[in-house]
Amino acid sequence: MSVLMEIAMFPTDVGESKSRYVARVIEVIRESGLPYQLTPMATIVEGESIEELVALIPKMYHTLEAMGVKRVYSVVKFDIRPSKENRLKQKVQSVEQALQQSAKR
Amino acid sequence: MSVLMEIAMFPTDVGESKSRYVARVIEVIRESGLPYQLTPMATIVEGESIEELVALIPKMYHTLEAMGVKRVYSVVKFDIRPSKENRLKQKVQSVEQALQQSAKR
Amino acid sequence: MSVLMEIAMFPTDVGESKSRYVARVIEVIRESGLPYQLTPMATIVEGESIEELVALIPKMYHTLEAMGVKRVYSVVKFDIRPSKENRLKQKVQSVEQALQQSAKR
Amino acid sequence: MSVLMEIAMFPTDVGESKSRYVARVIEVIRESGLPYQLTPMATIVEGESIEELVALIPKMYHTLEAMGVKRVYSVVKFDIRPSKENRLKQKVQSVEQALQQSAKR
Repeated sequence: MSVLMEIAMFPTDVGESKSRYVARVIEVIRESGLPYQLTPMATIVEGESIEELVALIPKMYHTLEAMGVKRVYSVVKFDIRPSKENRLKQKVQSVEQALQQSAKR
Repeated sequence: MSVLMEIAMFPTDVGESKSRYVARVIEVIRESGLPYQLTPMATIVEGESIEELVALIPKMYHTLEAMGVKRVYSVVKFDIRPSKENRLKQKVQSVEQALQQSAKR
Repeated sequence: MSVLMEIAMFPTDVGESKSRYVARVIEVIRESGLPYQLTPMATIVEGESIEELVALIPKMYHTLEAMGVKRVYSVVKFDIRPSKENRLKQKVQSVEQALQQSAKR
Repeated sequence: MSVLMEIAMFPTDVGESKSRYVARVIEVIRESGLPYQLTPMATIVEGESIEELVALIPKMYHTLEAMGVKRVYSVVKFDIRPSKENRLKQKVQSVEQALQQSAKR
């Protein structure tokens, strides 16, 4: 079972720069011990159950709440495939392979 | 405290029509007793904590899993404001008021 | 051909309340003449081509830019079915019918 | 001016594996010449105007349409900052710096 969760969470009431807040939210993910990847728009975490992944969301929010923010926005995407494992690396690889094959044609 | 969660969840391996699956997923939301609103693109649920809302996500997934689907995709958005209540109706009203005021000018 | 576009767009550097900005962005959609529906989390617009829908996005952004905001965030979802028409109403109806049928069982 | 667009687009009527379709959609991005980054959940493209980025969306869709798919879903996020440049690399760096600083404390 592989569940990928892509999550962006940030305050919308604190001015233009968000990196201080985003860093604290990502610490929650890092402390979970689950494999993750930072991207310029979100963080992608892989789990073996959807339960362990959604459990991160309230923890991330409460970290921001404790920093005194008044409004928080979050966008989360899930891609769930029971028959697969270890997709944090494999998904990009399978697309890159398909790109190379179509380039050869 | 008002937490709005907008969620779309559907199988991506079952052909063009999804309404049979979407209906089962929405039953999970309905059974929670939380106020919700169907839209053409998602369902919006309001809760008083982020915990009670994220708890719906695994339940929704396991309903689809029990129907035999092999891949599930979900997009979830959260809008969290500790100082507010009852926003499922009020958010649209406050935008409509602002629309009327700018039309008067 | 039916294309549904769900769009939320708002400044993230202007404090807790956003309705003044959101109203201006929705005016752009209203002026397009395309059918749309406000929801508590976004606006859903229906078009007959993806081109006419994506053309709204820069117009919406430039409206916010002209109001002096320094950072804008937007989440957009598309659901595209060439074989369908008039789905702004029909999608919710077909899910509600499926809900009633599963309630009867 | 820096506009980041994160986009995922895929058919929802073609079975469990999507990489053949996703690769063709990414070719459209590659052919644009704009800097981009593949992630396990989406592709992130950077532009100097929102116009040049949204122009990719119909092209991506028509590539899938030509492959015969009957339903397409897409999720797009924009992060727009007029005062910045070159954020495809810098956003992750500024979060990583903030992570290191909070680790030192």
